[in-house]
Amino acid sequence: MSYKFYYWPGIQGRGEFVRLALEQAGADYADVARGSGGVDAMRAFLDGESDGALPYAPPFLQAGDLVVAHAANILLFLGSRHDIAPQDEAGRLWAHQLQLTVTDFVQEIHDTHHPIANALYYEEQKDEAKRHTENFLSIRVPKFLTYFERAIARNPAKSGTLIGDAPTYPDLSLFQLVTGLRFAFPKAMARVEPGYPKVSAVHDRVAALPNIAAYLASDRRIPFNEHGVFRHYPELDA
Amino acid sequence: MSYKFYYWPGIQGRGEFVRLALEQAGADYADVARGSGGVDAMRAFLDGESDGALPYAPPFLQAGDLVVAHAANILLFLGSRHDIAPQDEAGRLWAHQLQLTVTDFVQEIHDTHHPIANALYYEEQKDEAKRHTENFLSIRVPKFLTYFERAIARNPAKSGTLIGDAPTYPDLSLFQLVTGLRFAFPKAMARVEPGYPKVSAVHDRVAALPNIAAYLASDRRIPFNEHGVFRHYPELDA
Repeated sequence: MSYKFYYWPGIQGRGEFVRLALEQAGADYADVARGSGGVDAMRAFLDGESDGALPYAPPFLQAGDLVVAHAANILLFLGSRHDIAPQDEAGRLWAHQLQLTVTDFVQEIHDTHHPIANALYYEEQKDEAKRHTENFLSIRVPKFLTYFERAIARNPAKSGTLIGDAPTYPDLSLFQLVTGLRFAFPKAMARVEPGYPKVSAVHDRVAALPNIAAYLASDRRIPFNEHGVFRHYPELDA
Repeated sequence: MSYKFYYWPGIQGRGEFVRLALEQAGADYADVARGSGGVDAMRAFLDGESDGALPYAPPFLQAGDLVVAHAANILLFLGSRHDIAPQDEAGRLWAHQLQLTVTDFVQEIHDTHHPIANALYYEEQKDEAKRHTENFLSIRVPKFLTYFERAIARNPAKSGTLIGDAPTYPDLSLFQLVTGLRFAFPKAMARVEPGYPKVSAVHDRVAALPNIAAYLASDRRIPFNEHGVFRHYPELDA
């Protein structure tokens, strides 16, 4: 199966959680919007000029006749076809539950720089962003990381991953969360992360997976910048 | 199958999307936290004193040995067992994609009164809430409702519902969105909603389903109040 993947070409954003899964699965895929005419092709889907499920927004994935949108939904789909998720019902639901918690965390990370409105520039909501981020770093980051730390500790396989014996797609996403938070909030993460050694260990283990390591070293991976979900604004990194 | 459902007892909140599905399915369920000792029982799960998947937060559902958390994930699960969702892969993914868009919309609705932090009172973020809500009502509500209107129009069955010939769980959630927005923002919705007649028609059709009508008239349904996702603060309803 060859996939067509659609996401904004200049950022990692929410698409990165899907890219990591496609790469770890060794899937054959095109990152369409990064190619010539690709953004127009993506917009045609958003404008409803396509068959199949109407995406509300990127990312979405085309697999034959199927169009699957929403990062967590794409991962649910890819998890059913590739060796990056448990295949039994309880395991599938648990993986997806973890992923939906990642989704919530990502939204809160986005809101650190855009608490008022997506339609406004960061500079138009800097004061609110500062207030939001103070709470985010002191309360929300510890709450989410505590949850993932406990989830790893509770894995009956005691493998150091979230589910079973090997990394699954929620581990890939946890890697992305840690990498992104380190980029956006280096001071805060240096202070906080030592309290979550199991989370850090998942980050390191995922980074060392051969497919992921090759991807991270390639130009298929877009560098972090100040347009995506994770942004480094020093004034927010208390 | 008899279910145990866990959610904060005093609000509709994110749990309501699950309650509607359980009611429409005619499922046998207990709303545990509304009963004696129920909140303690719920907290035991959150504290990790249970087997099975660790919930990050309510709502969650217990079904035999399974624990399923996150409203959208619970609906995915219920959709596989009851006649409230398509059963083929494309249909299941499309229903879930719609539901994840509902999830995003709900988060933005919540942020109209809590744009800075959940940990702070509304009164501590009133100015930011006003700014957030202005953008929400003028840009975000039309964008989401336009999406659902188009999705209904694109349904090949031309049934007036989102998927297939009859209401499925995303239709139940769309009903809840409309009902809740009418409660929270009666002036804004009176102005905006006439532009989305298909969405309004789904609301009316779901409200008239026998199981849903019986539920809405029962004391199993918690009235709207100023503690849930949908809150009526007249100063925000421009």
